[in-house]
Amino acid sequence: MKIGIYGATGYSGMQLVSLLKRHPHAEIVFLSSNRFAGKKFSQLYTKFSGMIDDVLLDEESTYPLLTKVDLVFLALPHGVSMRYVKKIKNIDKDIKIIDLSGDFRLQDSDIYEHWYGFDHLIKNSIKDFAYGLPEINRDAIKNAQYVANPGCFPTSMILPLYPLVNEDIIEGKIIVDSKTGVSGAGRKESQNFLFSEVQDSTYAYKTGSHRHSPEVVETIKDFTGKQINFLFSPHIVPATRGIYSTIYVNLKNGITLEDIQKTYNDYYKDEHFIELVDYIPSTKDVNRSNKNFIHFEYDNLTETLIIYSTIDNLMKGASSQAIQNMNIMYGLEETMGIDFDLFYI
Amino acid sequence: MKIGIYGATGYSGMQLVSLLKRHPHAEIVFLSSNRFAGKKFSQLYTKFSGMIDDVLLDEESTYPLLTKVDLVFLALPHGVSMRYVKKIKNIDKDIKIIDLSGDFRLQDSDIYEHWYGFDHLIKNSIKDFAYGLPEINRDAIKNAQYVANPGCFPTSMILPLYPLVNEDIIEGKIIVDSKTGVSGAGRKESQNFLFSEVQDSTYAYKTGSHRHSPEVVETIKDFTGKQINFLFSPHIVPATRGIYSTIYVNLKNGITLEDIQKTYNDYYKDEHFIELVDYIPSTKDVNRSNKNFIHFEYDNLTETLIIYSTIDNLMKGASSQAIQNMNIMYGLEETMGIDFDLFYI
Amino acid sequence: MKIGIYGATGYSGMQLVSLLKRHPHAEIVFLSSNRFAGKKFSQLYTKFSGMIDDVLLDEESTYPLLTKVDLVFLALPHGVSMRYVKKIKNIDKDIKIIDLSGDFRLQDSDIYEHWYGFDHLIKNSIKDFAYGLPEINRDAIKNAQYVANPGCFPTSMILPLYPLVNEDIIEGKIIVDSKTGVSGAGRKESQNFLFSEVQDSTYAYKTGSHRHSPEVVETIKDFTGKQINFLFSPHIVPATRGIYSTIYVNLKNGITLEDIQKTYNDYYKDEHFIELVDYIPSTKDVNRSNKNFIHFEYDNLTETLIIYSTIDNLMKGASSQAIQNMNIMYGLEETMGIDFDLFYI
Amino acid sequence: MKIGIYGATGYSGMQLVSLLKRHPHAEIVFLSSNRFAGKKFSQLYTKFSGMIDDVLLDEESTYPLLTKVDLVFLALPHGVSMRYVKKIKNIDKDIKIIDLSGDFRLQDSDIYEHWYGFDHLIKNSIKDFAYGLPEINRDAIKNAQYVANPGCFPTSMILPLYPLVNEDIIEGKIIVDSKTGVSGAGRKESQNFLFSEVQDSTYAYKTGSHRHSPEVVETIKDFTGKQINFLFSPHIVPATRGIYSTIYVNLKNGITLEDIQKTYNDYYKDEHFIELVDYIPSTKDVNRSNKNFIHFEYDNLTETLIIYSTIDNLMKGASSQAIQNMNIMYGLEETMGIDFDLFYI
Repeated sequence: MKIGIYGATGYSGMQLVSLLKRHPHAEIVFLSSNRFAGKKFSQLYTKFSGMIDDVLLDEESTYPLLTKVDLVFLALPHGVSMRYVKKIKNIDKDIKIIDLSGDFRLQDSDIYEHWYGFDHLIKNSIKDFAYGLPEINRDAIKNAQYVANPGCFPTSMILPLYPLVNEDIIEGKIIVDSKTGVSGAGRKESQNFLFSEVQDSTYAYKTGSHRHSPEVVETIKDFTGKQINFLFSPHIVPATRGIYSTIYVNLKNGITLEDIQKTYNDYYKDEHFIELVDYIPSTKDVNRSNKNFIHFEYDNLTETLIIYSTIDNLMKGASSQAIQNMNIMYGLEETMGIDFDLFYI
Repeated sequence: MKIGIYGATGYSGMQLVSLLKRHPHAEIVFLSSNRFAGKKFSQLYTKFSGMIDDVLLDEESTYPLLTKVDLVFLALPHGVSMRYVKKIKNIDKDIKIIDLSGDFRLQDSDIYEHWYGFDHLIKNSIKDFAYGLPEINRDAIKNAQYVANPGCFPTSMILPLYPLVNEDIIEGKIIVDSKTGVSGAGRKESQNFLFSEVQDSTYAYKTGSHRHSPEVVETIKDFTGKQINFLFSPHIVPATRGIYSTIYVNLKNGITLEDIQKTYNDYYKDEHFIELVDYIPSTKDVNRSNKNFIHFEYDNLTETLIIYSTIDNLMKGASSQAIQNMNIMYGLEETMGIDFDLFYI
Repeated sequence: MKIGIYGATGYSGMQLVSLLKRHPHAEIVFLSSNRFAGKKFSQLYTKFSGMIDDVLLDEESTYPLLTKVDLVFLALPHGVSMRYVKKIKNIDKDIKIIDLSGDFRLQDSDIYEHWYGFDHLIKNSIKDFAYGLPEINRDAIKNAQYVANPGCFPTSMILPLYPLVNEDIIEGKIIVDSKTGVSGAGRKESQNFLFSEVQDSTYAYKTGSHRHSPEVVETIKDFTGKQINFLFSPHIVPATRGIYSTIYVNLKNGITLEDIQKTYNDYYKDEHFIELVDYIPSTKDVNRSNKNFIHFEYDNLTETLIIYSTIDNLMKGASSQAIQNMNIMYGLEETMGIDFDLFYI
Repeated sequence: MKIGIYGATGYSGMQLVSLLKRHPHAEIVFLSSNRFAGKKFSQLYTKFSGMIDDVLLDEESTYPLLTKVDLVFLALPHGVSMRYVKKIKNIDKDIKIIDLSGDFRLQDSDIYEHWYGFDHLIKNSIKDFAYGLPEINRDAIKNAQYVANPGCFPTSMILPLYPLVNEDIIEGKIIVDSKTGVSGAGRKESQNFLFSEVQDSTYAYKTGSHRHSPEVVETIKDFTGKQINFLFSPHIVPATRGIYSTIYVNLKNGITLEDIQKTYNDYYKDEHFIELVDYIPSTKDVNRSNKNFIHFEYDNLTETLIIYSTIDNLMKGASSQAIQNMNIMYGLEETMGIDFDLFYI
């Protein structure tokens, strides 16, 4: 299918472009970036010299092309994305959209406006977006015209939590202590993410106030009907890639570890991109792949179930998951163009 | 005072040597290493060429020197240290000892033997060791002949937890999710800690089963009389230095954040090496210093108090804390030779 | 074709395995490792769980399988490889071999023995090995039963130097100052390559005495008939991947930069894996790809031509180049299974 | 003495402040930063909370304080510094100045204007600045009111080159291939120096056109009367600290390695901050110290002398060298406040 990509020059956009360029069924029609319009993509990412030399278009220049593409990806900032969606829908009502921002992940626009601080420009459209987490929402994605691609942290948390909440086998407070590399902060100029600042630096930020917190709570409520008592505590570690979520929960009375294992097997044993492993995983297990590795252990002393979940923030946490959604929307092999785990180091 | 150092060639030993070399009142009489006996210290750490060219002695060669030193530091592996202590005490009953291993941190030798897997060789001596965490045990250290220097993780956890447990203002399960750089694993040959393996790698290990877990529980019991319900969950992050402990606790009914703040102020406001900061700290705040930075926030939704505590694992978590103890034992200015925060990057 | 891989568990071996697993025409029959025989490949590299779970065979166990494979790759240490080659040839005289060690790169066994310090076990076989640098030796590789895959540094140096020497347009001393990440040192236990040692560490080693020096000199002599006056000066930098060679040469009288550009164009314009770029490249341009980026500048003041050449040491410098050779040997599309540049970061 | 520091918030300024704060004879009267005026220094570098809480003053606010300070340090950008110098001299003609920029390093203002692209505002003052490289210009510094602190790269090159040029024992082209960590680029917002961009990235830049090139040539001419034929080729490596210069030179006919060794001994054997080592050094040998480690080897094949020289770019390459100069100007022990090598890792 023919594809346009907005926000092609951030890290997620770049990763999306480089993957789609090799996808057997995707044909890139345009790459768009207002900031770098007129430059070649390969001038911004010289690695792609001779391979992705497309000239970047500004927003306006893409309008005439919209009717020639089947699908657009939006790798734009929160708040900006919805403005593009509004415009694009007006120009071509049949076009498919996969949005990588947070603008259409929360079904309740009040919650969106509270956490994101923007007025939502097209509240009525939110319900038309399927939440793009294939392992729990594949059927809806299959039939969706619009998909809201999940946040990176939420992907790492919802996948391990959803089966346990849905089966009603955990209770009480859920604490998630997540660690992320800095590529999630993007490629924009910044002091905080300079190499000299990040090296040997580990710290928490936005404990309890990160926008990915309501995404987890609301999504789990949407899919299970249950309200969780949830604390999300993200941290920065001196890495480029990788999200590692350590999840602390309590089992309901009578629930055994066999029940947990069985639940995970029932939900995920056949999922190509989820590995239920019998050791504590590392972000290195998933770097540069579309995989999610999950493991759990039980601490007898404190009666706590600890779940370890890791993904690559730019892949399963953003770009390759977006392609997984595209594959599903078009009835392609779900793994097409994203099924490699080539690089351990 | 005259000093001997055993285990001088590991990272903790090396850090201790380099600090003591500049300490106004310390005079190094010998450096010992069985593995590298006969080599100069500066052959192992070429940085110190022309500055610390002492030849390393094997264990036996140090015996005749023991009566000429006032104090020995032991930066030896767990299980090895107690053997040295036994021997050294026999040779010189007046010598002072600061032990950086875990061999004398647990007053109950059964607990030691359970968690460390060794028979304790000199059970009767354990009680003669003061737990060397000055901010909670200064008086005992002052009068001690023997000091058990705390573990790196425990230092980062006991300092923030002790006041709250002692004042009886928290309750229920305590979860600590700690992140550490890899220098704590030492300088020995290893595959797991190769640069190529560590870069972009984050992972949990020994959840609930790390030896530093009983050290926290037992020490807090010794100092407060209270048994805590405690889960310790350590992680490796791709850094050389720094420990970051994120602590999740519940407040007792009626306890306010003002109570927490007041408690910390009461205990630590005048402590030179503890900073109670009004922002979420980073390991970068304490790298290469003897400081502990502490901050707390409250999550209303889940009614959870989150405490952030960070130290440098080789400094406050090992070597500079050992010197702080030495200073106290000898009635010196407590900050002598360890009071610098010279390097932000 | 059916394939066996010896030395599958080092970094080069692992990279080779992960690439071949996705190669459309390759079928892995066995993976061999004496050290880890009996373990699954995915136990050593957990990332490949569920994907490459082959059990590693020891040397002996592979013998019966040799007649069932078309081609073996040897990713073994220097000196070990020739012993395997001898044995394998005896068992199956028709089998194809691609050797990634240095044992068959130097046509003159005296030079080999001088620089490697081993007696060569099968001197008569050396001449049967084609030097596996496709861009300068494609025809020989096409018809070869045995290929000696080039060293990582030599690949980065011979590609830019060969055209200039062959056209006889440079003269005098050639100085190459190379910088490499540490993955080239492999995955074996080591103190020098611990994360804490490598971080913030840059240093030269083996200036003028590295085994890759004669490989460059002899290969260039074999292919051009000319003896170069050559100084190779390698350095370690705190990176996992990437080789960067900065080459300082003098132009012959009357030679212009246009001549240089024309020469490179003539030799390499149509080479898929060589990019002649108009800016100073970075190792980031080639990380995790089979590419070699080349650029040159001229310093008028000192009349020096400076050439910048960069490759990924594990890819074009080892494993993907080995597959490029395989593709050529089997008449496949040369880019098959190795033509991706997916990851900028 | 009483001190003011301009440009206190860049990395060099910060390093200077943290060192001076501990200097036994220095008293900081003011810290200045136009950009961050009104903030506390410890808000920008939280590590120094409770230790360096001085409020940053804008330029104007410092004027009334100038008559109360003995010495000002300028850690300002090139081109900005000379404007400050002009103003400061007007306000207080007796004040001492140590300038860390490039504005007063080149005695010939034409050369300055050519390489820096600015008109020089106070050409007549240039001659009043002593070049602040103590090991070759100590006497002039001792009597100087104004000192131009050397560039980081030039320090690493002039120290090893000066004795050989001065003794007239090398000839022909001098090639210096330098590698630097990224802290030299400062703390300003930037895309190029983001962690994700720097990790696993090595590249050359400004070959033959870096401003530090004329600084080396002119300084060596000033001090030896000789014009060198010099190519400076800097590279970025993924490190925070450290400069490593690999220097390729030719010996004059009849000169032996003993002559080289003797020359270095004659010039530097008694220099506290220069170590002539008998192995190839690493940046790790000098990180966070004021040292310069020098070693040389000879390549018989190409008759090339290779000299390895390494410094910490923020210390001997900037801030601690500035303090060394201050110590000399005030007749203090030259090592005062800068003589530590505390941190190997």
